[in-house]
Amino acid sequence: MSDTLNRLAELLEQRKSADPQTSYVAKLYAKGMDSILKKVGEEAAETIIAAKNGDNEHLIYETADLWFHTLVMLAQAGLKPQDILDELARREGLSGLEEKASRAEEGAK
Amino acid sequence: MSDTLNRLAELLEQRKSADPQTSYVAKLYAKGMDSILKKVGEEAAETIIAAKNGDNEHLIYETADLWFHTLVMLAQAGLKPQDILDELARREGLSGLEEKASRAEEGAK
Amino acid sequence: MSDTLNRLAELLEQRKSADPQTSYVAKLYAKGMDSILKKVGEEAAETIIAAKNGDNEHLIYETADLWFHTLVMLAQAGLKPQDILDELARREGLSGLEEKASRAEEGAK
Amino acid sequence: MSDTLNRLAELLEQRKSADPQTSYVAKLYAKGMDSILKKVGEEAAETIIAAKNGDNEHLIYETADLWFHTLVMLAQAGLKPQDILDELARREGLSGLEEKASRAEEGAK
Repeated sequence: MSDTLNRLAELLEQRKSADPQTSYVAKLYAKGMDSILKKVGEEAAETIIAAKNGDNEHLIYETADLWFHTLVMLAQAGLKPQDILDELARREGLSGLEEKASRAEEGAK
Repeated sequence: MSDTLNRLAELLEQRKSADPQTSYVAKLYAKGMDSILKKVGEEAAETIIAAKNGDNEHLIYETADLWFHTLVMLAQAGLKPQDILDELARREGLSGLEEKASRAEEGAK
Repeated sequence: MSDTLNRLAELLEQRKSADPQTSYVAKLYAKGMDSILKKVGEEAAETIIAAKNGDNEHLIYETADLWFHTLVMLAQAGLKPQDILDELARREGLSGLEEKASRAEEGAK
Repeated sequence: MSDTLNRLAELLEQRKSADPQTSYVAKLYAKGMDSILKKVGEEAAETIIAAKNGDNEHLIYETADLWFHTLVMLAQAGLKPQDILDELARREGLSGLEEKASRAEEGAK
């Protein structure tokens, strides 16, 4: 499982020196963070719509798009998927997870 | 890396029989898919805001929240993070990734 | 002020019989509600990004895009902007507004 | 129709000097633009979900929430709903509207 995110992260790093004319990701980097974030928002909306449609095949596709564009966002910000996984691991464990989620909910109010 | 998402997925499965009064995730399941999707949209907005603020620590936190709630959504839909990673792996490889992303962009127009 | 939203609503009704090949709105109707909702999500993300950039000219532009696509959504659902304005008026007045917003917040938790 | 948005804008201006302890809007102002934008993202997601549910009563409610929070955002940015209506009016008219929407779509690519 790890290999996929690790390999993707490496690939996204390599794309930083690719040609925006031929690489979709290099084009996103060149357009800048706002364009990447716009895609994150767009893919989140598409994920919600796919989930509402109850079409799991489409939901997998859109969630992959959403994760992919958050990976591009992380790369642009100088971060790695491992940073997110470390944060998720940190919250893990019964009490830890619940407590963190609970605090996240508090903060959201 | 894999272990985190795998363990989280298992944990989220276990929460399906937990008490909504004491488990944040069980409460989300009980409220239903709409409540989970609302959280996905909310966390996507918070991720965008954190990225715009250029605060990487906060960005890690919010992206973890976003991924976490997409994992809850997948669990509610009967899916696993591996389904998303398989889809991402399928798109992987230089030409494959670019081609898929390119088609995704086409479809988005 | 009213005239703008009223005229836009009329225009959007007329577009229901327009040619999707030449009318952007007729094309959206033809693609269906999911495509319209995707635009709503996309424009919401762009509005957030513009606000974070502190660029009021761009913020006006993106908010207009967001409102415009919610009007298309309402038209597709058989609703009118007046339905929204009536709801906002209903909540209006010091106590009414605060009370409604407060309840909305409650429901959001 | 105009009266509602005008009155709401005036009310939102007055709230700038209200007590965050008793006024929902004053509380949002006090929390700052990020909190307001988070609400915009959240209400956009709820609007999408309501539209997918095909529940027009709920759709009116959520769209009103979305517009309301964009009005709070405009007030916080020193803008008025009239600024948005002027922009929409400027795009209006058959060719103008289509041309603008078309360009907006171009920009979105």
